Amino acid sequence: MNFHIMTLFPDMVLNGLGTSITGRAMERGILNIEAVNIRDYTLDRHLHVDDAPYGGGAGMVMQPEPVYRAYEALRERIGRKPRVLYMTPQGKVFSQEIARELAKEEDLVFLCGHYEGVDERVLDMIVTDYLSIGDYVLTGGELPAMVMIDCISRLVPGVLNNRESAEIETFHDNLLEYPQYTRPENFMGHRVPEVLLSGHHANVDRWRRQQSLIRTAERRPDLLEKACLTREDKAFLAAYRQEQEEKIPSGKIKKSL
Amino acid sequence: MNFHIMTLFPDMVLNGLGTSITGRAMERGILNIEAVNIRDYTLDRHLHVDDAPYGGGAGMVMQPEPVYRAYEALRERIGRKPRVLYMTPQGKVFSQEIARELAKEEDLVFLCGHYEGVDERVLDMIVTDYLSIGDYVLTGGELPAMVMIDCISRLVPGVLNNRESAEIETFHDNLLEYPQYTRPENFMGHRVPEVLLSGHHANVDRWRRQQSLIRTAERRPDLLEKACLTREDKAFLAAYRQEQEEKIPSGKIKKSL
Repeated sequence: MNFHIMTLFPDMVLNGLGTSITGRAMERGILNIEAVNIRDYTLDRHLHVDDAPYGGGAGMVMQPEPVYRAYEALRERIGRKPRVLYMTPQGKVFSQEIARELAKEEDLVFLCGHYEGVDERVLDMIVTDYLSIGDYVLTGGELPAMVMIDCISRLVPGVLNNRESAEIETFHDNLLEYPQYTRPENFMGHRVPEVLLSGHHANVDRWRRQQSLIRTAERRPDLLEKACLTREDKAFLAAYRQEQEEKIPSGKIKKSL
Repeated sequence: MNFHIMTLFPDMVLNGLGTSITGRAMERGILNIEAVNIRDYTLDRHLHVDDAPYGGGAGMVMQPEPVYRAYEALRERIGRKPRVLYMTPQGKVFSQEIARELAKEEDLVFLCGHYEGVDERVLDMIVTDYLSIGDYVLTGGELPAMVMIDCISRLVPGVLNNRESAEIETFHDNLLEYPQYTRPENFMGHRVPEVLLSGHHANVDRWRRQQSLIRTAERRPDLLEKACLTREDKAFLAAYRQEQEEKIPSGKIKKSL
């Protein structure tokens, strides 16, 4: 899979994605991550890529010309109109579902805006998807692009090994991960839960499932509604909730966890 | 303000945050961003920081000892118990409101997990806030930490200049940004909206406000409910909605924008 990042900060994105799992997949040729420096496509002799907004106001706006020329060069290289993602708080909120859909593409172009934004006309001309990673304001599109590329890469066949692939299953289920423990057995007086040392696989699995259910119920009840629960899960949750209610003295408001 | 990032990939976070606005604020001494390599605190002679999970299963879990020792060294240096943020999809979803609250701290510690997770005991001992940047699975806590640091930094007094500070106002209002245009006036046959060339400030302001209202209504109606709208805004939206309804032939479902 090929990721093409149109940016004014090519080093930032390449350094950030050269590490860990994406870096390893690039070395193995499964992923190809390329940063296209928008500044290379300006016709301005001072290499400016931004200018003041029409109508006045604070900040500088990225001009349409360099962005469009960078895109055209990319499109020619790819050989067809690619999907172009623009990262903006105005976009659809990125999710694991969107990542799964995007992972099916052969080429994805990320346009990273900076300054006050990008001239609307060029966005209208080239962008196919407006995406946001959440309701918060960031300096540019680079970090959101890196986040999306990390997430999408993990869904490309061959990027994760079998061991790692198992990790991402949890979220598919809409349940939060159970707690994990490793050596030492006793850390500063805190012991690993007995069941994990028992060697009894069925008990370990049941305990982990129950921990996932409890956590999801306490921290993200919205996910629980979408989760696929067995009859046993539902019975366990009902019993757990009753137990919790009995613990709360009447007249006292339950503290959210 | 001091950001301390506990990580196995110190170069990744430092490279990513050394650019642009955070980089400039570091040079000017307003921000201090430090990466603490957890591996420097292992007592293992092969420098291992992870081990297999108790109870079996895929992946490796980060051991409590190196994390705790790295934290203790930090706490001693800071001189008191700092706020420790752990990035996990299980956490509270990060938002502009949370960023504003965190920006008031003098020191913030970010603990970046990797592998299958971090031993639960050390999380219980040191973490004060569990935060998520969204409902998607990432390789580690580094990118979420960078996203949060970028967002929080922008709210620290002196990091943004006056021109830039104005940018972040829009989201405060719970309205999306209006479209921006810059030179040239005519780009490949696409012209800048006439009103922006008029020099009539009141008309420009009204047009921009209306564009923000339309965009928010179309793309993020959930934000509109929280927005602070004037009587004029409400009248405009009502008229706009009626106009839209009249445009839709009966029996046809409105396409979402």
